[in-house]
Amino acid sequence: MTAYDPNNVFAKILRGEIPCFKVYEDAKTFAFLDIMPRAPGHTLIIPKAPARNLLDVQPDDLAEVIRTAQKIAIAAKTAFAADGVTLTQFSEAAGGQEVFHLHVHIIPRHVGVAMKPPASVKEDMAVLKQHADKLAAALDQ
Amino acid sequence: MTAYDPNNVFAKILRGEIPCFKVYEDAKTFAFLDIMPRAPGHTLIIPKAPARNLLDVQPDDLAEVIRTAQKIAIAAKTAFAADGVTLTQFSEAAGGQEVFHLHVHIIPRHVGVAMKPPASVKEDMAVLKQHADKLAAALDQ
Repeated sequence: MTAYDPNNVFAKILRGEIPCFKVYEDAKTFAFLDIMPRAPGHTLIIPKAPARNLLDVQPDDLAEVIRTAQKIAIAAKTAFAADGVTLTQFSEAAGGQEVFHLHVHIIPRHVGVAMKPPASVKEDMAVLKQHADKLAAALDQ
Repeated sequence: MTAYDPNNVFAKILRGEIPCFKVYEDAKTFAFLDIMPRAPGHTLIIPKAPARNLLDVQPDDLAEVIRTAQKIAIAAKTAFAADGVTLTQFSEAAGGQEVFHLHVHIIPRHVGVAMKPPASVKEDMAVLKQHADKLAAALDQ
């Protein structure tokens, strides 16, 4: 497998070199909105430690990522009055991966509403800000 | 959220009331082949403890499930000479869930080969047996 590239876009977000709509952070994980959401509230959860994907991440870091993903899923259900949640994680290009820092997608879902295709439509920045605030508020409850 | 139904098909598999193509088992988790694989080697990882989905599972059980999912992903990459892996987890019908015992899908992927739609084609039992054996052997390495 190709080595971890410390200049991938999520590594830059972690280092604060690129802005993001942050939703949550703890010692081991970081969560922020996908700017091309497949549904409102679509969030990415990543480990702070470098990891390319599921195939090389340290198991303890992965466990922390999934714990955060669950917190986000529960908060997103409240914040967006979602009927369900879809979780995806892609490893390597053949698996659907586009940014090579491990990330788990949490996508709030509503009955009868299909997800947009991956990375298809860039959301308005003001809408993303509002969604991030709403989700962060639900996490604080 | 609806309560956990102890008569769902995966609960019956855990109790040995329905057969399956078992791939792996430890104290907290169980893994077996999806009989309608989206790609060869498509495996389901479930907690032994009752949980409807991501929204109600005990965080420690969820962490064990993802640890097992990682083991399966790494072994599946070897066993099926996969180029990548797609992980999905669906919570509630709106999220894509059909069986209401938490399960994580691990789907080995190859460059240029699309996944079949979910639950579209039932695989031949002899093929599934061969795939389960191959995956179990890779897990033992």
